[in-house]
Amino acid sequence: MSGVAVRNVPRPEEAVVARLSGFGVATIHEAMGRSGLMKPYMRPVWAGARACGCALTVLAHPGDNWMLHVAAELMRPGDIVVVAMSADNADGLFGELLATSYKARGAVGLVIEAGCRDTAELREMGFPVWSRAVSARGTVKASVGSVNIPVVCAGAAVQPGDVIIADDDGVVVVPRLGAAEVASAAQAREQKEAATRKRLAAGELGLDIYNMREALAKAGLKYQDGPAED
Amino acid sequence: MSGVAVRNVPRPEEAVVARLSGFGVATIHEAMGRSGLMKPYMRPVWAGARACGCALTVLAHPGDNWMLHVAAELMRPGDIVVVAMSADNADGLFGELLATSYKARGAVGLVIEAGCRDTAELREMGFPVWSRAVSARGTVKASVGSVNIPVVCAGAAVQPGDVIIADDDGVVVVPRLGAAEVASAAQAREQKEAATRKRLAAGELGLDIYNMREALAKAGLKYQDGPAED
Amino acid sequence: MSGVAVRNVPRPEEAVVARLSGFGVATIHEAMGRSGLMKPYMRPVWAGARACGCALTVLAHPGDNWMLHVAAELMRPGDIVVVAMSADNADGLFGELLATSYKARGAVGLVIEAGCRDTAELREMGFPVWSRAVSARGTVKASVGSVNIPVVCAGAAVQPGDVIIADDDGVVVVPRLGAAEVASAAQAREQKEAATRKRLAAGELGLDIYNMREALAKAGLKYQDGPAED
Amino acid sequence: MSGVAVRNVPRPEEAVVARLSGFGVATIHEAMGRSGLMKPYMRPVWAGARACGCALTVLAHPGDNWMLHVAAELMRPGDIVVVAMSADNADGLFGELLATSYKARGAVGLVIEAGCRDTAELREMGFPVWSRAVSARGTVKASVGSVNIPVVCAGAAVQPGDVIIADDDGVVVVPRLGAAEVASAAQAREQKEAATRKRLAAGELGLDIYNMREALAKAGLKYQDGPAED
Amino acid sequence: MSGVAVRNVPRPEEAVVARLSGFGVATIHEAMGRSGLMKPYMRPVWAGARACGCALTVLAHPGDNWMLHVAAELMRPGDIVVVAMSADNADGLFGELLATSYKARGAVGLVIEAGCRDTAELREMGFPVWSRAVSARGTVKASVGSVNIPVVCAGAAVQPGDVIIADDDGVVVVPRLGAAEVASAAQAREQKEAATRKRLAAGELGLDIYNMREALAKAGLKYQDGPAED
Amino acid sequence: MSGVAVRNVPRPEEAVVARLSGFGVATIHEAMGRSGLMKPYMRPVWAGARACGCALTVLAHPGDNWMLHVAAELMRPGDIVVVAMSADNADGLFGELLATSYKARGAVGLVIEAGCRDTAELREMGFPVWSRAVSARGTVKASVGSVNIPVVCAGAAVQPGDVIIADDDGVVVVPRLGAAEVASAAQAREQKEAATRKRLAAGELGLDIYNMREALAKAGLKYQDGPAED
Repeated sequence: MSGVAVRNVPRPEEAVVARLSGFGVATIHEAMGRSGLMKPYMRPVWAGARACGCALTVLAHPGDNWMLHVAAELMRPGDIVVVAMSADNADGLFGELLATSYKARGAVGLVIEAGCRDTAELREMGFPVWSRAVSARGTVKASVGSVNIPVVCAGAAVQPGDVIIADDDGVVVVPRLGAAEVASAAQAREQKEAATRKRLAAGELGLDIYNMREALAKAGLKYQDGPAED
Repeated sequence: MSGVAVRNVPRPEEAVVARLSGFGVATIHEAMGRSGLMKPYMRPVWAGARACGCALTVLAHPGDNWMLHVAAELMRPGDIVVVAMSADNADGLFGELLATSYKARGAVGLVIEAGCRDTAELREMGFPVWSRAVSARGTVKASVGSVNIPVVCAGAAVQPGDVIIADDDGVVVVPRLGAAEVASAAQAREQKEAATRKRLAAGELGLDIYNMREALAKAGLKYQDGPAED
Repeated sequence: MSGVAVRNVPRPEEAVVARLSGFGVATIHEAMGRSGLMKPYMRPVWAGARACGCALTVLAHPGDNWMLHVAAELMRPGDIVVVAMSADNADGLFGELLATSYKARGAVGLVIEAGCRDTAELREMGFPVWSRAVSARGTVKASVGSVNIPVVCAGAAVQPGDVIIADDDGVVVVPRLGAAEVASAAQAREQKEAATRKRLAAGELGLDIYNMREALAKAGLKYQDGPAED
Repeated sequence: MSGVAVRNVPRPEEAVVARLSGFGVATIHEAMGRSGLMKPYMRPVWAGARACGCALTVLAHPGDNWMLHVAAELMRPGDIVVVAMSADNADGLFGELLATSYKARGAVGLVIEAGCRDTAELREMGFPVWSRAVSARGTVKASVGSVNIPVVCAGAAVQPGDVIIADDDGVVVVPRLGAAEVASAAQAREQKEAATRKRLAAGELGLDIYNMREALAKAGLKYQDGPAED
Repeated sequence: MSGVAVRNVPRPEEAVVARLSGFGVATIHEAMGRSGLMKPYMRPVWAGARACGCALTVLAHPGDNWMLHVAAELMRPGDIVVVAMSADNADGLFGELLATSYKARGAVGLVIEAGCRDTAELREMGFPVWSRAVSARGTVKASVGSVNIPVVCAGAAVQPGDVIIADDDGVVVVPRLGAAEVASAAQAREQKEAATRKRLAAGELGLDIYNMREALAKAGLKYQDGPAED
Repeated sequence: MSGVAVRNVPRPEEAVVARLSGFGVATIHEAMGRSGLMKPYMRPVWAGARACGCALTVLAHPGDNWMLHVAAELMRPGDIVVVAMSADNADGLFGELLATSYKARGAVGLVIEAGCRDTAELREMGFPVWSRAVSARGTVKASVGSVNIPVVCAGAAVQPGDVIIADDDGVVVVPRLGAAEVASAAQAREQKEAATRKRLAAGELGLDIYNMREALAKAGLKYQDGPAED
């Protein structure tokens, strides 16, 4: 199970990452044609966490966080570490010591398909983490994995250098090439939604705003009156 | 899969809903003879959420929130929307745009056996939602379901017009007919509990307050001393 | 299914419990050679909860909290009640009434492999609870279980009188005999970590601090350069 | 938690049950407009099991099979017992002793949202059971539930007297009133499928048989050629 | 995470194991006062598997089957290997190569709270295995665990030398001391059940055989007639 | 959510597929350095199923099997269809009608991260399917997905044209380029295992065959004698 650690990977332009950081996960997912989301079991370990950065990928083994140390050296400011696992595991591969190291080296967050611990300390440090579990379970440093290779994390394919946006709603992956188009689409979507929001807030119906009545009738929806009062 | 949207359904008297709104979910569930609860996987998307209203029911299909727009038109102030699914699904069928619409039309909350997104915005708006998942996954508007028909949501049968009470402890369904009796029983229970609470706070034992000692002995409980110190 | 209630069990020295109360769950678990943890589905019902006490064990049956009343009498100040179940169950066996009783009798917390209710009230009371579910589901008092016998709770073997430490990261069980050694090992670990933290915060790498480079090379890790920019 | 046992409930005509018994679960579910299915976690405890009968409903409590004995007396030949639970539970509420009783009294099967044991013996007896778990866990007879009241079992609402069809694909509920129409629709569906099957077996495409090409194009499907060989 | 391998452990008398081997898991669990069962997710990897033997315990780490080789040396004919895990894991720690070794050394089966692979070959060899998952995922040999120490496997505490009985219904643990009494109780239970079975097969009701009618009435069960035919 | 259907994709040489078809999933996974496996929840719908073929990939939406018809046209003899889902879903997207079509057009099997129905008929037809659930739940044809694009199925990245091997142990994905090397490695592994199997069957220990004793001692394993007989 020997692995590789890839030193330099193409990263997106900072300006594109900055633009994407202004949108929420749901908006970006929609702007991508409803794709790119990780599974909903990936949750922030503290409420209100938000991060946007460039994916530094890690493939680790159950109960083993050795590769997370290898990743620390290859990190660049603005990176968000994405840890995929070779098999389902909920052990606490990440805690405040590693967070201290990652923060010192410029990482802006961590997404891990395993467990995380020291959640209270992470909140205090303001270091955002998304994980599938909170677990104090400690780990060994025995099996070599890989850094900066393509991985599958929580059902999403991630290439090193993709843009990761994460918030209370989950985690979305934006392919590096095409990230600029996604940012534009997200902006367009947000503007359109602002207009719709105003109309909905005024009590107008989505049925009318989106012209749904005819399609509903065609699809067979029948309106009828309910039972008389009993 | 054509469906129906029922316009007028019998609703409970406002006074009864108001009375029920004063009790917690656990109290009402007990007052109903320990029935009416949804399964515990239905959780508030923001802590501290509380709602009590009249059920406007929706049957929707996986990944499709079309019927939630149909529901907006049939809504009356004080309604709480209860969304059942034709199959297990965790997609984000509800977010802040629909919440804006629902709030504008008088809904007091949403209970959905699927996913919810924009949770941070919902908390800011003060719009309470109970769901089985948080997910940014977007939806289509392609398959017709129904509104205001009897549904099964999270293991509980719900009729349109039933009273729904939801808080940090979960969601309970009170049948419309009989809601007044439940309110009275809840009140009686709360008074009794207040007295018990005082005695327990003073250090008295439940064993004595509830007269359990004889029943325990009869059921075979044996007291014995532990091992000597080692 | 008759059971036993054991009155007196050996308890650890107060001073040892006090020492252990100064460490987090992750630290103590590591200090024990990475053992003693309950499964990660045991979560605090309110964020920020912390407890350290002496285990008063209970074996209860699904949907039945009778034994939790028996436990109240056998409780001593500083105890933490650990409830194991004879079969998987998520019903709300514990709520604010029992918490009022337990608090009055000196218990410092509860760990239960079932459900808990009245979570908002528990937070207000400051009574810490770890459970596998939040559920308003009420219970009966019909089947006799046991108090202060060895149990298995959330995958961990617990003897009455063991020390239980619980926080946001989970729950760990320290065998009574040997608790002093664990406290010492935890202290040593914390001192060592403080030094490491300082170096990591200064940007030094774990690879260097822990001398990992040679072992990684031996284990087959290959460094390579990534693709040229596209 | 006192309950009721209802003696006589309207049952469907035998001829209708006989007609429905000729179709599989998937066919009947489709013939009902894709409704009536229990959740897919309800599985036969032995492969090849099949049953069709009239629902005798039971509401039982976790770890308690008392009501299954009450049901035995109210049973009529051709009944299939449907056991709903007041809370999630996987204990083995049913085994070969009860199966011996049920068989002697004419029941044709059991559907239970809990556990089942003695699976080898049940297969030998030819008594078909659908359950959510196999578990040897024994039960008490302490809490009263109900027999022949409306229940929710595995997400489906069941009235006493509804027709239940179960096979390797799962369990479907046909409302008593309307069962004849469902049988006719199932027959029509089966005939249509036989014709389609022949065409598909001959290599014809569903795209052509169902005229899907235009709708696919309209919905935006684009055909394109793949990459040249590498 | 260094561990110990204990060479000689007290084993039960062969005659007692032989007597227990004549009973099913459900019978033995009942004979023990409804205790000793592992959780129902432990399933035989091939239907019809049955085993009864003396527990040789193993504590292993996620994705690591090193200790299973250590166990092979300490094995005695008639042993059944019980593998507990330091953390939840579904990897395939056991397959036909290890089964070949175990069989050659006299083991009569394996119970593992992780995954198993080569299930087709195991069935052909007639080597019975109970596991929580089937998985082809391979393992490393990197972390030391322990052999023949007390473990918790699938929720049950197991001491080396306890008797393990496993069949289609699950796995039960009989403490070594007291195994003879359990065998006697199982025999008594089986004889009593044989008599009951005959009466039930003749159509007699459990209500009468077990004298339940009075208790049911006392507990509040009300009989009533159903609705007139519609 | 418009999609693409890619007509021609590079496929591996038939000879390589034929070679790989001779090995089991576990062997191939090991020969690939323990990679390429789908998650263990992907199970054959009938025991003894085996398939090896060239991946024709499909991305479908919850409750919608439209794309499975599109796939039928693009299929070539020897293909195995791999269906990924845009969101978690257990509906029965595949049954015997589609299987009839697929068989007629030369497909050798199906791997689907959703549900499957008509399992009895599939077994009779000898058409092998791996799925995450068995469900009779029917589907619509409303949302366009894609065919022959890269997908993530059950945690594994799959490119159209990759080789898929599936048996009772699960499903493994072999990248098209490099498939020949994997076949050779699998053959080498099998030969080596044959020799080891002979030695193990003769009672030799893995400890000796694999030279583990020194490494175990170095890693800290201590042997000790157990307690004297009690």
